[in-house]
Amino acid sequence: MENHVMQEVCRMIGPDWGDGLFCPGGSYGNGTAINLARFERYPDVKKKGSNHIPRQAIFASEECHYSVYKYASFLGIGEDNVFSIRTNDMGEMIVEDLEKKIEQQIEEGAVPLVVVATFGTTVKGAFDPINQIADVSKKHSMWLHIDAAWGGSLIFSQKHRSKLNGIERANSVVINVHKLLAVPQQCSMLLIRDKGILHKCFSRGAEYLFQKDKHYDKTYDVGDKYLQCGRKCDVFKFWFMWKAKGSSGFASHVDALMDLAEYFEEQVNKRSEFMLVSKRQYINVCFWYLPRYLRGKANVLEHSVELNKVAPKIRAFMVENGSLMLGYQPLKQLPNFSGLSRRILL
Amino acid sequence: MENHVMQEVCRMIGPDWGDGLFCPGGSYGNGTAINLARFERYPDVKKKGSNHIPRQAIFASEECHYSVYKYASFLGIGEDNVFSIRTNDMGEMIVEDLEKKIEQQIEEGAVPLVVVATFGTTVKGAFDPINQIADVSKKHSMWLHIDAAWGGSLIFSQKHRSKLNGIERANSVVINVHKLLAVPQQCSMLLIRDKGILHKCFSRGAEYLFQKDKHYDKTYDVGDKYLQCGRKCDVFKFWFMWKAKGSSGFASHVDALMDLAEYFEEQVNKRSEFMLVSKRQYINVCFWYLPRYLRGKANVLEHSVELNKVAPKIRAFMVENGSLMLGYQPLKQLPNFSGLSRRILL
Repeated sequence: MENHVMQEVCRMIGPDWGDGLFCPGGSYGNGTAINLARFERYPDVKKKGSNHIPRQAIFASEECHYSVYKYASFLGIGEDNVFSIRTNDMGEMIVEDLEKKIEQQIEEGAVPLVVVATFGTTVKGAFDPINQIADVSKKHSMWLHIDAAWGGSLIFSQKHRSKLNGIERANSVVINVHKLLAVPQQCSMLLIRDKGILHKCFSRGAEYLFQKDKHYDKTYDVGDKYLQCGRKCDVFKFWFMWKAKGSSGFASHVDALMDLAEYFEEQVNKRSEFMLVSKRQYINVCFWYLPRYLRGKANVLEHSVELNKVAPKIRAFMVENGSLMLGYQPLKQLPNFSGLSRRILL
Repeated sequence: MENHVMQEVCRMIGPDWGDGLFCPGGSYGNGTAINLARFERYPDVKKKGSNHIPRQAIFASEECHYSVYKYASFLGIGEDNVFSIRTNDMGEMIVEDLEKKIEQQIEEGAVPLVVVATFGTTVKGAFDPINQIADVSKKHSMWLHIDAAWGGSLIFSQKHRSKLNGIERANSVVINVHKLLAVPQQCSMLLIRDKGILHKCFSRGAEYLFQKDKHYDKTYDVGDKYLQCGRKCDVFKFWFMWKAKGSSGFASHVDALMDLAEYFEEQVNKRSEFMLVSKRQYINVCFWYLPRYLRGKANVLEHSVELNKVAPKIRAFMVENGSLMLGYQPLKQLPNFSGLSRRILL
């Protein structure tokens, strides 16, 4: 069942995509992808460790998910070797900065290992310009991983699929169908272009689990392709839901959410007591609630100290009243703002 | 709730035990423990990676769980740097061999990082001699991790708790309560002696998730202590079951399983068509079914080629008939034998 679902989603990405696994969360998937990138470049890391290879560099947008840093530490690559690429006002990775930082690292003796692009950043819901990034990755023979944990489910929507154009040029993609598609948590897919690399990277051949003299077709023993041993059977939840709703059911679900976000953005724009942080790209709508004395003024952001206190206060008030659990966050230099995304729409 | 359950189990281990987390499986827990060991010895690995530190060596019994090897690769330490310690006929680590191999590695320029001992090996259910191992670890300032995924739940049994004597001398322990205690899979605990190391090792401080200006007590925001981001709420299953059955309920459950295993071992011993592989130490009962011409003979093991084929055949027959799913495995030089453990008793 897992093989079948993976093949179906792989086919939706591109004809030469071939393998994958369900992970306990998108972070784990991102970490596994970085490990595959290192293994592809230096297959003997599996046996010998990474002491004898040069310093490796990972590149990700400054708005990427923090798991990239956490797994860089865990894998022995180190947080300091994750290089933060600047983003524009929309939250998209600036490709010129990526190129510049890759070249800097090569000059300093590091090996540019992997670019982690994001489809649907956590705060703003930005989509990195994947075709340009793929060109850069290809030029430097780097692995391209897309953290599409949040945005990847758009693949089911005919109307919005084009936001993912170029996805097939990556080497690996994480899609958490437990986010946008509302499959019960956790249901996180790591999809891989190369058909054989998972087994090559993770096989250990523990004979007491994966006996070679079993009497049935052993291609269904997928356990030796994973880092884990026992796993939750996450595929079930997705398989059942897909059977029940069909691809068209998922498409309507996604489209309805996008329509709702559009409606909400319009409402924010219409009201003088609210102000958008930046134009919506996905279902993340980021906005400030403006105290009375700031409404209609052009210099709102000059009052960022006061503005910074508003969102936490509203949240505290609403949580205590039990009315709504509303997220908020600062970003780069911007003061705390509220975000309406999956927390409410799903 | 998670903090509370962790504290309760920590208290059962020892008075100076203090922290822990639920992991998606025991493999993940073992890997996290090895990472903590490296971080404790070389805190700057978190930021700088492991390129600049000497080769590290991990020591584990030849019957340890294969996740030790898988995570050694993943962490960039390398499979070849896991040194396999010989075991005796009972499956217990031979401490003299451990000492010898640690000294060899020091001579060859490696840093002895961690000993992974096992309470309840997968095949034989052996318990490594932890007090002797703790002495060796201490002498070389090594981290001591116990993979008690399978055997650790004995901590609830007054009758069998003594099998774990010395557990409090470790630095970390994995206990999968989804195994012996029959909590629904997955429910795997990593327990840590040092109260602060998890946060020091894994904190990243993603501001959009762990806001510092929240209006409530932030000590319950444990997310920054983990490698994962979103997680399954595994503690619920354990908490509910503990509430329902009580510590004494878990004790009777464990004791009943041990009694059943004892009864089964007696039955095997009584019958000439069966032969024990070695004396039972836990609920694993390992045995051969002997073809008619081998019964009652002293030189049974000289017929290992024929014997090797018996268990897979029985398994195939029983699976096809739908009567029982019986595991089998070879071990070291021994031919395939059948094992009766959690597969049947739970």
